[in-house]
Amino acid sequence: MKDFTLGLCQFMVTNNKKENLLTALNYIEQAASNGCNIIALPEVFNCPYDNNFFNSFSEEEHNSETLNLLKNAAKDFNVYIIGGSIIEREDNKLYNTSYIFSPEGKLLDKHRKVHLFDIDIPNKITFKESDTLTAGDKLTVIDTPYCKIGIAICYDMRFPEMFKKMALSEAELIIIPAAFNMTTGPAHWNLTLRARALDNQVFVAAISPARDTTASYVAYGHSLVASPWGDIISSLDDKPGLLVCKIDSKLLYNIREQLPLLKHSK
Amino acid sequence: MKDFTLGLCQFMVTNNKKENLLTALNYIEQAASNGCNIIALPEVFNCPYDNNFFNSFSEEEHNSETLNLLKNAAKDFNVYIIGGSIIEREDNKLYNTSYIFSPEGKLLDKHRKVHLFDIDIPNKITFKESDTLTAGDKLTVIDTPYCKIGIAICYDMRFPEMFKKMALSEAELIIIPAAFNMTTGPAHWNLTLRARALDNQVFVAAISPARDTTASYVAYGHSLVASPWGDIISSLDDKPGLLVCKIDSKLLYNIREQLPLLKHSK
Repeated sequence: MKDFTLGLCQFMVTNNKKENLLTALNYIEQAASNGCNIIALPEVFNCPYDNNFFNSFSEEEHNSETLNLLKNAAKDFNVYIIGGSIIEREDNKLYNTSYIFSPEGKLLDKHRKVHLFDIDIPNKITFKESDTLTAGDKLTVIDTPYCKIGIAICYDMRFPEMFKKMALSEAELIIIPAAFNMTTGPAHWNLTLRARALDNQVFVAAISPARDTTASYVAYGHSLVASPWGDIISSLDDKPGLLVCKIDSKLLYNIREQLPLLKHSK
Repeated sequence: MKDFTLGLCQFMVTNNKKENLLTALNYIEQAASNGCNIIALPEVFNCPYDNNFFNSFSEEEHNSETLNLLKNAAKDFNVYIIGGSIIEREDNKLYNTSYIFSPEGKLLDKHRKVHLFDIDIPNKITFKESDTLTAGDKLTVIDTPYCKIGIAICYDMRFPEMFKKMALSEAELIIIPAAFNMTTGPAHWNLTLRARALDNQVFVAAISPARDTTASYVAYGHSLVASPWGDIISSLDDKPGLLVCKIDSKLLYNIREQLPLLKHSK
């Protein structure tokens, strides 16, 4: 691992795909001009987070307007892009999938959300992803010249065993496109992200859409970066914004030496 | 699981074993008279937490002054006792072991600390349990008429995979005799305990010795109970005290139904 600058793009997602793509492109450009080497987008950033929109907004990998845009942006701005997630269609199944592009515009890997979000808290929040989506079945850890990066999507973060596996596969940064809501966000967002970083001695970066109180699903926002010591080292509020965070590799090496949790994992 | 009252006994541990045992007995009596059904003591409650004391304070199971006292107290006060931990000696090996007694004075089970605490943060805290102790190698989940109880000891709490296994073995309450220090306590005590409770949808109770600033290892204190929603529902500060906490079984059942994390674990 070596030092680098991370950019998290927290923006409003509308029901106009073209508009969402333009917004994403503008944020990527802004992050690159701020010196970011790795740039990440929110969960389902080109489509409202709503089962009713997933099918019509879905794209096939081989012919995807969104992936073409990300691929070109990575190349044009010479950056790694963790493309939040989009609804991927393959063989009439839909997946919540994150695509990762290199500065050469190469598709490095993709992560399909492994844990589908099915929640029912009466009068608070009910959502059933499994009504429309199919779960992925693999971990994703990619190698870059800066660090090894693990990818998880939103509800995946609820499962510590997945994160320990990524850490033992040498992930040093775990990037999580995610959209918590107004019930789980205030209760669990910071706690869960800090614990994943601390327990696995990795940097954790979570990227949410900005909060749109008129949406059917209101995202919490609060994109953040947590350190391997479990501190929040940079964060946004609920409004649109770009988070630019310098990642200090020494911090990770020092903490792993002083408190050797990964070595002690059994 | 059904409702019950939990008592956590946070007291000062000295280098006088007889005094420590008398203190423990007084706290158990006080907890029982406050209606507690399950009573828990701190980590290494009869001996200073210091490698130099472990051998001379250690006891063999078949002839243990401390275990006799706990066994009789459980029977006399008609309570379950989670006996914090003591240094157990067997075949010239030492273990950091928690013994659990039923209200009939029966030894139900024991948990030997699985993860030994070896830490070296320069100018802050250095401790190497593995210099003197041997690690245990099994999980401990016991059945009671109130709930199923998992046991972990201090540094064990750093390993989320151990907690998920206990939760999948149907633990509903995890009791953790523990002594964090003045570096890791403020940084990680609340965060780790809340995360273990939330991720595993269990009640978590951690019992520390009270803080003795003259000791070679200064305990953080702050014994607490966290709910399956990740909230701290009751806690002490650093001083000696008895924590009495009513445990509401409905809370656990509701949360597990609304946000089915255990069902979704893969």
